[in-house]
Amino acid sequence: MHVLITGAAGMVGRKLVQNLAADRALFGFEVTRLTLADVVGSPVPEALQEFTTALTVDLARPGDPEKLIAGRPDMIFHLAAIVSGEAEIDFEKGYAINLDGSRSMFDAIRCESDREPYRPRVVFASSLAVFGQPFPAKIGDDFFTTPLTSYGTQKAICELLLADYTRKGFFDGIGIRLPTICIRPGKPNRAASGFFSNILREPLVGMEAVLPVDDTVRHWFASPRAAVGFFVHAAQLDTSLLGPRRSLTMPGLSALVSEQIDALRRVAGDKAVALIRREPDPEIRKIVAGWPADFDARRAGNLGFKAETSFDEIIRIHIEDELEGRNP
Amino acid sequence: MHVLITGAAGMVGRKLVQNLAADRALFGFEVTRLTLADVVGSPVPEALQEFTTALTVDLARPGDPEKLIAGRPDMIFHLAAIVSGEAEIDFEKGYAINLDGSRSMFDAIRCESDREPYRPRVVFASSLAVFGQPFPAKIGDDFFTTPLTSYGTQKAICELLLADYTRKGFFDGIGIRLPTICIRPGKPNRAASGFFSNILREPLVGMEAVLPVDDTVRHWFASPRAAVGFFVHAAQLDTSLLGPRRSLTMPGLSALVSEQIDALRRVAGDKAVALIRREPDPEIRKIVAGWPADFDARRAGNLGFKAETSFDEIIRIHIEDELEGRNP
Repeated sequence: MHVLITGAAGMVGRKLVQNLAADRALFGFEVTRLTLADVVGSPVPEALQEFTTALTVDLARPGDPEKLIAGRPDMIFHLAAIVSGEAEIDFEKGYAINLDGSRSMFDAIRCESDREPYRPRVVFASSLAVFGQPFPAKIGDDFFTTPLTSYGTQKAICELLLADYTRKGFFDGIGIRLPTICIRPGKPNRAASGFFSNILREPLVGMEAVLPVDDTVRHWFASPRAAVGFFVHAAQLDTSLLGPRRSLTMPGLSALVSEQIDALRRVAGDKAVALIRREPDPEIRKIVAGWPADFDARRAGNLGFKAETSFDEIIRIHIEDELEGRNP
Repeated sequence: MHVLITGAAGMVGRKLVQNLAADRALFGFEVTRLTLADVVGSPVPEALQEFTTALTVDLARPGDPEKLIAGRPDMIFHLAAIVSGEAEIDFEKGYAINLDGSRSMFDAIRCESDREPYRPRVVFASSLAVFGQPFPAKIGDDFFTTPLTSYGTQKAICELLLADYTRKGFFDGIGIRLPTICIRPGKPNRAASGFFSNILREPLVGMEAVLPVDDTVRHWFASPRAAVGFFVHAAQLDTSLLGPRRSLTMPGLSALVSEQIDALRRVAGDKAVALIRREPDPEIRKIVAGWPADFDARRAGNLGFKAETSFDEIIRIHIEDELEGRNP
């Protein structure tokens, strides 16, 4: 089976590849060919080098999506996107990559399937950003997608395209609305949600972190390990169970910032907590106030998708996966 | 004020123009310039000829949307679309016109507003087709849009674009999800929904009509007069009341086919009802079974949009507007 990962150099993409290096049957089938695509070079673990091609492509560049699909991948993880902050600042770039880039790839599949029978599975990374205030206390699976950012709009549109192209038989699509990933490893990106990870990741290695919002902010989280699990599960799912509604809000943990901090205290002590510096930022506060706090992600739960149930667990996963088990 | 109507030669477009011919202050302001655009020639009533330009344009043709926006219309009624049956058969044409055509026009407005301050109102004709089974008994204003046709997908995507472009300040958008228009004037057509109008319109002039579904089918209706009223009201609405959710399910009348027939009997007698020939069509039956039956269109109602409350009224409106008051 030939697997294509777009956005392979991104955080989730790299983790997916690392997991595949450890287990070539990760998706329930033997991967015999792997194509990694990103606008920058994608790292290729040694165990996968023999049958992996890493391509530097731009989905917004005419011809690039077709180049990826010409190899007729059986399983496509479509993770490539520019992040919400950038999509908000650069309106045209956001639409060009997040909407037109995805649609061009979907159309490349459609044209390939017109040419000769072909119906790959497309696992699409969507986002909670498809939702916008006002919300019910818990957002159910039937709730209206009313994004309040261009990024969320682009993701919601791709969800609609994913469903229509699936309905027409061009591919077998499934959309995965990721919770906010916490604890994000590595360096902060332009996302306004960065602090949710920073206030745990930095103190765990003895560094200061800034908390720009109140302790009473509630949000929806899953670990990077859970995110990889969502994609692995989506690759194996019997999609006939989905019916025509192809995008799913993933399960997650609804937690207050204060609960994040309490968990940090239990795992790493008061010294770690003391490294969190409160520095209210009205701009970030305002953005975060528009975000969803809690979901009833029943459909995904019933379909077997799983996330963490406590922040202690999320922090322990970070220590295991990113700090080689060292809890300073 | 300069008004632009796209799809001006269509049924709702022509009615809007006729109403404007009877009352130049229809929209609450004096119309001093009118541009009618369609892929075919738009009829121009004599009373409007002095200040009206009828353009034959194709929104999917590069340059045409810019041509319409170059005149900086203050109020845009965007009705142009290919119908659902055609969009389902010709996938590429449906996306080219209903999605890309609309987006090109939205982008033309954006570019014009970047060039020099400009923020027209855009009243967009959306559709119940944004919804797809399974439904609750009454579909509320927060219900998920999960279209089951390419046409519905294209309309739902335009609703998302309308909201995002409005949020960014490029224009002041409002989406109007029309109920099934009944009684459609003109000749019977092959649209799957045609029979809802045929079984009333034809018997009212002594002609036979075919009923291809059971009497127990329930659906959501408004008259052509109500449809014009929705657009007129949307043109005058204080859109600050909408917040970020810019598309509204219009009010309508939820009625059974048997209730349509009962109303016909009351208005035109048993002789008219006897002209309805029952000829079950499994294909139409199946299509119609996927359509919504009832809505709780509370938001639009609270904002002052109004539809009929009985089929007797809908039939009487048809007799007044299409049959010059003659009830045979």
